[in-house]
Amino acid sequence: MPTILGQNQYGKAENRVVKITRDGATHHIKDLNVSVALSGDMDEVHYSGSNANVLPTDTTKNTVFAFAKEYGIESAEQFGIHLARHFVTSQEPVHRARIRIEEYAWERIETSDAGEAKHSFVRKGQEIRTAQVTFDGEKWEVISGVKDLTVLNSTNSEFWGYIKDKYTTLKETYDRILATDVSGKWRFNWTDDEQTMPDWEESYEQVRKHLLQAFAETYSLSLQQTLYQMGARVIDNRSEIDEVRFSLPNKHNFLVDLEPFGLKNDNEVYYASDRPYGLIEATILRDGCEARIPVDLTNL
Amino acid sequence: MPTILGQNQYGKAENRVVKITRDGATHHIKDLNVSVALSGDMDEVHYSGSNANVLPTDTTKNTVFAFAKEYGIESAEQFGIHLARHFVTSQEPVHRARIRIEEYAWERIETSDAGEAKHSFVRKGQEIRTAQVTFDGEKWEVISGVKDLTVLNSTNSEFWGYIKDKYTTLKETYDRILATDVSGKWRFNWTDDEQTMPDWEESYEQVRKHLLQAFAETYSLSLQQTLYQMGARVIDNRSEIDEVRFSLPNKHNFLVDLEPFGLKNDNEVYYASDRPYGLIEATILRDGCEARIPVDLTNL
Amino acid sequence: MPTILGQNQYGKAENRVVKITRDGATHHIKDLNVSVALSGDMDEVHYSGSNANVLPTDTTKNTVFAFAKEYGIESAEQFGIHLARHFVTSQEPVHRARIRIEEYAWERIETSDAGEAKHSFVRKGQEIRTAQVTFDGEKWEVISGVKDLTVLNSTNSEFWGYIKDKYTTLKETYDRILATDVSGKWRFNWTDDEQTMPDWEESYEQVRKHLLQAFAETYSLSLQQTLYQMGARVIDNRSEIDEVRFSLPNKHNFLVDLEPFGLKNDNEVYYASDRPYGLIEATILRDGCEARIPVDLTNL
Amino acid sequence: MPTILGQNQYGKAENRVVKITRDGATHHIKDLNVSVALSGDMDEVHYSGSNANVLPTDTTKNTVFAFAKEYGIESAEQFGIHLARHFVTSQEPVHRARIRIEEYAWERIETSDAGEAKHSFVRKGQEIRTAQVTFDGEKWEVISGVKDLTVLNSTNSEFWGYIKDKYTTLKETYDRILATDVSGKWRFNWTDDEQTMPDWEESYEQVRKHLLQAFAETYSLSLQQTLYQMGARVIDNRSEIDEVRFSLPNKHNFLVDLEPFGLKNDNEVYYASDRPYGLIEATILRDGCEARIPVDLTNL
Repeated sequence: MPTILGQNQYGKAENRVVKITRDGATHHIKDLNVSVALSGDMDEVHYSGSNANVLPTDTTKNTVFAFAKEYGIESAEQFGIHLARHFVTSQEPVHRARIRIEEYAWERIETSDAGEAKHSFVRKGQEIRTAQVTFDGEKWEVISGVKDLTVLNSTNSEFWGYIKDKYTTLKETYDRILATDVSGKWRFNWTDDEQTMPDWEESYEQVRKHLLQAFAETYSLSLQQTLYQMGARVIDNRSEIDEVRFSLPNKHNFLVDLEPFGLKNDNEVYYASDRPYGLIEATILRDGCEARIPVDLTNL
Repeated sequence: MPTILGQNQYGKAENRVVKITRDGATHHIKDLNVSVALSGDMDEVHYSGSNANVLPTDTTKNTVFAFAKEYGIESAEQFGIHLARHFVTSQEPVHRARIRIEEYAWERIETSDAGEAKHSFVRKGQEIRTAQVTFDGEKWEVISGVKDLTVLNSTNSEFWGYIKDKYTTLKETYDRILATDVSGKWRFNWTDDEQTMPDWEESYEQVRKHLLQAFAETYSLSLQQTLYQMGARVIDNRSEIDEVRFSLPNKHNFLVDLEPFGLKNDNEVYYASDRPYGLIEATILRDGCEARIPVDLTNL
Repeated sequence: MPTILGQNQYGKAENRVVKITRDGATHHIKDLNVSVALSGDMDEVHYSGSNANVLPTDTTKNTVFAFAKEYGIESAEQFGIHLARHFVTSQEPVHRARIRIEEYAWERIETSDAGEAKHSFVRKGQEIRTAQVTFDGEKWEVISGVKDLTVLNSTNSEFWGYIKDKYTTLKETYDRILATDVSGKWRFNWTDDEQTMPDWEESYEQVRKHLLQAFAETYSLSLQQTLYQMGARVIDNRSEIDEVRFSLPNKHNFLVDLEPFGLKNDNEVYYASDRPYGLIEATILRDGCEARIPVDLTNL
Repeated sequence: MPTILGQNQYGKAENRVVKITRDGATHHIKDLNVSVALSGDMDEVHYSGSNANVLPTDTTKNTVFAFAKEYGIESAEQFGIHLARHFVTSQEPVHRARIRIEEYAWERIETSDAGEAKHSFVRKGQEIRTAQVTFDGEKWEVISGVKDLTVLNSTNSEFWGYIKDKYTTLKETYDRILATDVSGKWRFNWTDDEQTMPDWEESYEQVRKHLLQAFAETYSLSLQQTLYQMGARVIDNRSEIDEVRFSLPNKHNFLVDLEPFGLKNDNEVYYASDRPYGLIEATILRDGCEARIPVDLTNL
């Protein structure tokens, strides 16, 4: 046979599960998008089409919904851990499970009497929280993250002192807008059931806070520098995390030339451009730790 | 000539203007997407290609950016009024201008010392605010709105007592999730420069509050009833508004059947479905007023 | 009561129906996205929540799938006619039905022996065909259309002789790229069951051909002129159609300035810009006919 | 320093370059979306913000447009090779360049006299072609690909004989629709300037043909089996390729239950579902070759 099978995985992607927990008249909501990917002893289904080792993707979907009832959804990470453990330990041909989750946050609607509605919610919409849990029967890998968190500094950003070659036309600037959509992933050093598990909810809130603050508080000479500070701030403050990876588009807000109209644009009016954009990507590691988050978080 | 020209309009769409206002070290941001549509004495450009009456769309773009400097951006509506007045009054062939604006809200990043960053922002992301200003040289029409505001009631929604025909299989329900993405538009009764202009920023915040509260506080027997209450609450509380139009998808969250797994689903676990969805659309009017908002806010 | 109900409609949107017709081993496919909107005697459901006059949107969905079996899908328009007639004639409170359909075209995969696969298809992907059928119990209105059909002329387009005001910086050009995504709708003069029905499939193919040819064969002094020629070509050649409406973005392909690099750009290298874009919209009518297609085909 | 920098890269993403080549009155068009990612001696820009080793992303953008003039665009791959070589060989701190390209195909509009327009095009729209070229100063890696190529077999697909656990409810089927959006990447064994370069255009057309034919001609017992056949067909027929990776969603077309309406659905009427979907991913290798295409082509 001139061809062989390499890495492979399968499962049901994008199971949209909404869990309502009733505490008397007060309801709580968790809103997840769960994707399952299983791998293991799966050569035969590729070679001959025999499904003898295949747990149907439809079954993995059913399991997601059943587990929302059986275990509840304490956090995206904890929910992923329940699922990954189940697939690997209950099916002999499944050697590895990877659960990816997107979480959409909601907040309570304010009522007419300035209170909080007990069972009425409005989607927060500011960012998407992500979690990825992988289990091979022995070790855990948990990588949490964020995407679509759009931030902007209207000053305290410069860009100068770069290489000029024959294709360089960009002028140096000492005051520009710096804006990006934060896509980040961070890896926990929790890998074993014997270790104390992090508080996933608290950890997310803290990481989010630190990366926002680092973005705001770094006087920036380059987006790379800001990115590094964002990652370092997370590593420095959160001992449960060993590695951070960011993919940050440099969303250009170009100063509009108003001189043809006899107007002076004193860093006031900008044109927000779509494409092209700079794309800055890097990993920040706790010293002595190994990088394990894949390099590409985007397709471009 | 067997064919004739009917209604026509042209302009530059989606001018993405970001305006930074500096109040010492404290900056303020307005982030708009502005679309211009002009009409008037434009037959010849269609028939012969003569551009003698055509102000280039590129010029309308330049005007948007220049006006951000010349007038600032107090509100989307006020900015639209400046632009519409300019095009109609400065160019004889332009008889009517319609300015459409989307606004993206930002909030300040919280700093390490629990203060508010002076020039660092995170996009709020909860909804998109819209405004449409039309001017024909005499009368103004201002229609403001909101889109992509996602809300959910986890109880207090029933659906029963409907028509059953031979294609009906739906079971009646006395407790369901009611969820929608609010798309709404509301028309102001300000139409004339002689009238006192509404406070556009305050009006938006109040309308938004009222429609959210009406959604939360209506015990719902149908999404139509909820929609009507949302519109009536706005009309009742905001004297500056005469007409509201909503387009509300009924975003189905289906209760998952867990019985095959020996589990009881007591209104806890739902599957959030994408398509198809119900689509409920209606106009609510102040008694005695005429409907002027077009019927279709969506393409489907 | 200070508020009253205006125009309203409801139904199930985006029912994705795929119909396979087997002619021995040779299969045929129709792939539609069907949206139902009903209106009529529906005040009470808005005022009190009584659903006594409401055929559930779930039932309208079931009807779409059942009719695919009962009537087949000869064309999007014919399918819409079956559905609209059914809703209006079978339910007394329903006075008007509007069916909107998107159709996705497929073509056969070529086999190893250079034949055509009998039951294997690849989606064509070039454009989306649309149809809208409205019935009020007496008269029909059929508006067909196309969207996302992207076309480009690499020459034979000029733009000069326009108004210059103080905000004008654009230079006149005698050779530019003209590119657009065609969004068009056309209204048939078939309105009555007594009339001979058009051949909807043939009509679509012919209209599509004529508008493409008019785009290609018009030496253009403005996109407005090209738009008018596209509409006029359709009206002139297709007697079953009385009105055409186009919404054409002027997708800017800007000549890149290569002089800083010592290169001459002789209409060779362009930058395809996303936003902003010109947006040209107009109706073309058969002389003596009334315009009935709504003005806005887009949201901006 | 408790944190260190790991892998990093930067560049300008999504440069939309359109190249028109004039052969007398006959024009040719190439339409690309080009993304540049550079890495090398870039620690300092992250640590201190010094840009001394940074070629600005704006310069990489300029280079893309300049090279479209200087070298033309023979193929996406060849264009990427020119760019990658330039960045690595012209800038000492740049040790590695990765160029990613999306290509959009166009075809000529048919004219009134049944000829082909010389300079009028309609975008083909069936799929997006991709290419990725990486150069480290010594070795080349070229990975080409396709995405958004939607295919469907209306029969000759079964699914049975799988594992049943307590969460399994799926019924076995002996005749179902099999549909997917093909996302594939394939790696060339051309790695060295000394080797003869493949004919990139011909190779793409042939790979595309083989994977479509394998999809159509495989009687399928599982999507995994079909996927493997698609990859094996490419490896078997194209000696220039050593590795293929597919990510294939199993786009469910569910048979609609029409029995409640007294109708029999004999594999005729299907509901095309959006989410969740199966997701099948695998690598197929020429025997003896090493896998180098990253595992995840999607974000879920």
